[in-house]
Formats: sequence, C-alpha cells, structure tokens
Amino acid sequence: MSDASTIIFDKVCLIGIGLIGSSLAHAMRDRRLARRISIYDIDPAARDVAKELKLGDEICDTVEAAVTDADLTVVCVPAGAVADLAPEIAKYLKAGSILSDVGSVKQAVVRDLGPHVPDMVHFIPGHPIAGTEYSGPRAGFAELFQGRWCILTPLPATDTKAIERLRHLWEGMGSQVELMEPGHHDQVLAITSHLPHLIAYTIVGTATGLEESTQSEVIKFSASGFRDFTRIAASDPIMWRDVFLNNRDAVLEMLGRFTEDLTALQRAIRWGEGEKLQEWFTRTRAVRRSIIDANQA
Amino acid sequence: MSDASTIIFDKVCLIGIGLIGSSLAHAMRDRRLARRISIYDIDPAARDVAKELKLGDEICDTVEAAVTDADLTVVCVPAGAVADLAPEIAKYLKAGSILSDVGSVKQAVVRDLGPHVPDMVHFIPGHPIAGTEYSGPRAGFAELFQGRWCILTPLPATDTKAIERLRHLWEGMGSQVELMEPGHHDQVLAITSHLPHLIAYTIVGTATGLEESTQSEVIKFSASGFRDFTRIAASDPIMWRDVFLNNRDAVLEMLGRFTEDLTALQRAIRWGEGEKLQEWFTRTRAVRRSIIDANQA
Repeated sequence: MSDASTIIFDKVCLIGIGLIGSSLAHAMRDRRLARRISIYDIDPAARDVAKELKLGDEICDTVEAAVTDADLTVVCVPAGAVADLAPEIAKYLKAGSILSDVGSVKQAVVRDLGPHVPDMVHFIPGHPIAGTEYSGPRAGFAELFQGRWCILTPLPATDTKAIERLRHLWEGMGSQVELMEPGHHDQVLAITSHLPHLIAYTIVGTATGLEESTQSEVIKFSASGFRDFTRIAASDPIMWRDVFLNNRDAVLEMLGRFTEDLTALQRAIRWGEGEKLQEWFTRTRAVRRSIIDANQA
Repeated sequence: MSDASTIIFDKVCLIGIGLIGSSLAHAMRDRRLARRISIYDIDPAARDVAKELKLGDEICDTVEAAVTDADLTVVCVPAGAVADLAPEIAKYLKAGSILSDVGSVKQAVVRDLGPHVPDMVHFIPGHPIAGTEYSGPRAGFAELFQGRWCILTPLPATDTKAIERLRHLWEGMGSQVELMEPGHHDQVLAITSHLPHLIAYTIVGTATGLEESTQSEVIKFSASGFRDFTRIAASDPIMWRDVFLNNRDAVLEMLGRFTEDLTALQRAIRWGEGEKLQEWFTRTRAVRRSIIDANQA
C-alpha cells in the first residue's frame, strides 16, 4: 500500500541511531515520507540493533556510504560529537541536498557544523521538542513526534523552498513546525528544558547522598513529588552532559535567576513569611492553567 | 448490597472537606468502611458542595455536631489551621474514639493537636502519600489512596488495637500502611515531597519573571521538561504554604544540601567538567530504576 504521493525525500540519511534517530526511521517509514533510509552510527552494536530491527534500507559501516547521494542528511548525535563528525559528513553531501540535525542546542551546531557545509547544501538546524527517559536504537517509536513542536533555526539566507520541504517532512510525522533564531531557541530551551533537567538531576543526586536508611524510604515514598524528578533525571547522561556544556551561557543565566528566586523563598520560609509564599504559589498555579489552555498538558 | 462485615467504624467525622477529605468520604462509602459519615468544614461554600455531592450522611454547621459521638475523627485541614481548631474539636471527642489527621507534616500536628487530646482518646497522626494538583471538595475520588502508602506516626504509648483499627481502614481503602516516628517522617518527606514542591514552585515562578515574549514560548514549548514542574507547582497554595512553615527545619536542611549540589554542578558547567556531569547523571539514572523496581513508577 505504498503511496508515492507522500514521499518527500528520495534518500534520507540518519547519522546516529539513538532515541531520536530510530524514532525518525520508524516515523518516516510508517508515514512513507522517504523512499530509502540509510543509517550510520559510530557504535557497531547500535548498527547491529538497527539491522535487527530493520530500521533502514541500508545500515552503513561508513559515513561515506550513508551520506552519499542522500537528499536529506539528519545528524542525530549528542552535541559533543558533532564537531568531530562535521568534516567527514561534509565531504559526501550532495549538491542541492539538505543537512539538518535534531540537537537540543542550536547555536553550538551552527558553530560546529555550519563552517563545514558546502555552498550548494541547505543547512537547516532543527530540534524536535520530544523525547522520553529511554535512549538507544530500541527506544524509538513512530509516534514520538506526533502532536509535538519541531523548531527549525535556519540562517537568514537559507533557501525558503528547502525550509518548506523540511517543514513538510516534520508535519508528515505529526509535528507542528516553528522557525526561530538559534540564540533565541537556546534561551527558551534553557528555561523550559535544560534548567528543569539540571534541577531534577541535582535533587535526585542529593537524595542519593543521604544516609542509607533514608534512601530506601526515598524510593518507597517517591510518589509524593520526587518520582516526577527521577523520570527526568533518568534521561541520557551523555546527551545531557553535552547540552549543558554547549548551552553554557544561557543555562548559567537561567540558573542565576532560579537561584535568586529560591533564595528569596528560602528566606521567606526561615522568617515565616506565609503571605509571600502563598502569593508566589498562587501565581505559579495560573501557569499550569495556561499550559492546559495551550493544549500542552 | 451493603456488607456489614466491612464496616470498621460506626461514625466517622471528617473535619475539612478538600481533596483528601472528600476522597476519604468517597473511598469509605464505596468500600462500606463506615456506617455513617459526618462532615464539617469552616467554609460554608465547601459544606454546600459536600451536600450537593452527598459526600456524607450529615454535613454539619458546627464542629460539635460533626464530632459528637464519632468513633473516628479525621482532621483534613491545612497544617496552619490545626492549632485554632484543636481545642474546639477536643471538647467533643468521645472516650475510646480515635483522632487522626492527614497532614503532610507530623511533628507540627503532634505539637498543635496533641496537647488538647483527652486521655481516653487515641491520637494517631497519619499521612496518606497521595494527592493531585487539584483541590477542594469536588476534587476527591474514591481511588486516590489505592496502591499508595499511608504513614501513621503514633506516639510510643498509643494503644496498639487502636492503631490496628486505623490501619484496617486505610488498607480497606487500598493503601499500604507504614508506622514511623514523626520526626523521621518529616525528614523523609522533606526530601521526597516538600523540597521537590518548593523547587517546582520556584522554577515556574522564575519563568513567569521572564520578558513577556519569552513567556508565551515557555508555555508553548513546556513539553520539554518544564511541564512536569508546572503540574507540581499547581498544588494548593495554602496547604503548601503551611507545609513549609510547619516543616521549616527539615526543609531548610534538605534545601541546604540541594543548593550545595546545585552549586557544584553549576561550577562543573562553567568550567566544562564533562566527566563530573556525566558521572552525576549516570548515578541518578539508577535511582529511577530502583523506583521502577519498587513499583512506585
């Protein structure tokens, strides 16, 4: 029941086959958006899983084989791995093709990948706002992007036709697409994603530092709030290490604001300033309402 | 289809009919654990809702009418409201009856309620580890306690038969019961519940302090981590104000540990210490595994 009219790219190349890469493979195949999918991963074990799960038409042992002749190449590796891969990928990019990525930080990919992109290739960084606490090629599923946002951060001179083509791919996978300037993206994500992850990682670590008797009780009674943090703090350690190292300035800026606010609330608790606490907690309740109204809950 | 054999208490009195009180009413009626339920709430509007929803057999306009002749009285009000209510409730407690509560802080209720309890009444503070971000008499539902823990913190001299009777009630509503010393309870909950709530309240507040243009994007892209925090930060402001004011020492202690850890991670980000970050994030991932193994996820 192949429907040729849905095909947007003839050959799509995925570099890196973790949670996002494998979900892209599933989604593009389910929706018949690519005629052919080639996959490369630096880890032979990941390539073996990709073969076993038949995630692509060709699972390649070299970047060259995967990238050559691709109409769209999507880099799906941790932010810290992009710089090393960039010159190798760039060598094989086809003229007129699109190069994109799925990383959580966009200025860094512009910095690490951008300078290597040949003139005739359309470079359009991207970031699907989707994920789970699982990672690796077995973690992917076709519906991951359904109903989620995908932010594209093309530079001003980028060909609008190429942008529209990539937009259609994401829309075909069920996402809504938003265009944004890379620096602004990194600011917004610093507060909506990077800082929440850092805080969740911190508190779960703090809990593991308590005496052993208390630790088992922390697990037992986690349903009281802590549990939500552990899900976030179970996200891929390497990916998140790279997010913080590559979006350092925006994360430190948001962290500074957060710490100021936390200190103010700490002081209110110490001095028994109930009104201040209640006023703050009432304001935050309204934010939840906005999110429910925006259909993101 | 009344089954007399399930009845544990003849008359149960609920003081306060918010999320927990109304859930108790639903659960006890559904499971036929009480022959008669009386309800008092200081707020006439809440009493009207209780009448409308038929949450109890008698919705009383006075503490006296509600408490008189009750075999079990459960105080379900914010921690800050206990001290004022205590002498009034104490006046009408029946000899041989049980007095309990459902508050998130246990030393404070021992302090505020304990001294007023007549000699012939069994005082057994309690804390069901269950809740939602909704509040008020319409928020309750019978299954809230199903599969959840309930912690009881009786003082050493408490009659064991009375404790067992209260345990059976909670088990009848689907909970598992654990006994704990009040001070230890407050420590454990400070890290598993109170600190997570404080942090969630803080970061959601921090986000509302950003420029307006960024704020709408925070809502839009909340799915990336922030959304989980907004659910927690939508919890009842008055209840949580009172938790922090009444568990001040334990919360400030845990907050101190958290801030030290956060500062260490902040420094690692600033100085690009990737290994330190990765090691920390790998450790926290294991905690999630423990929670899944403990069936609390």
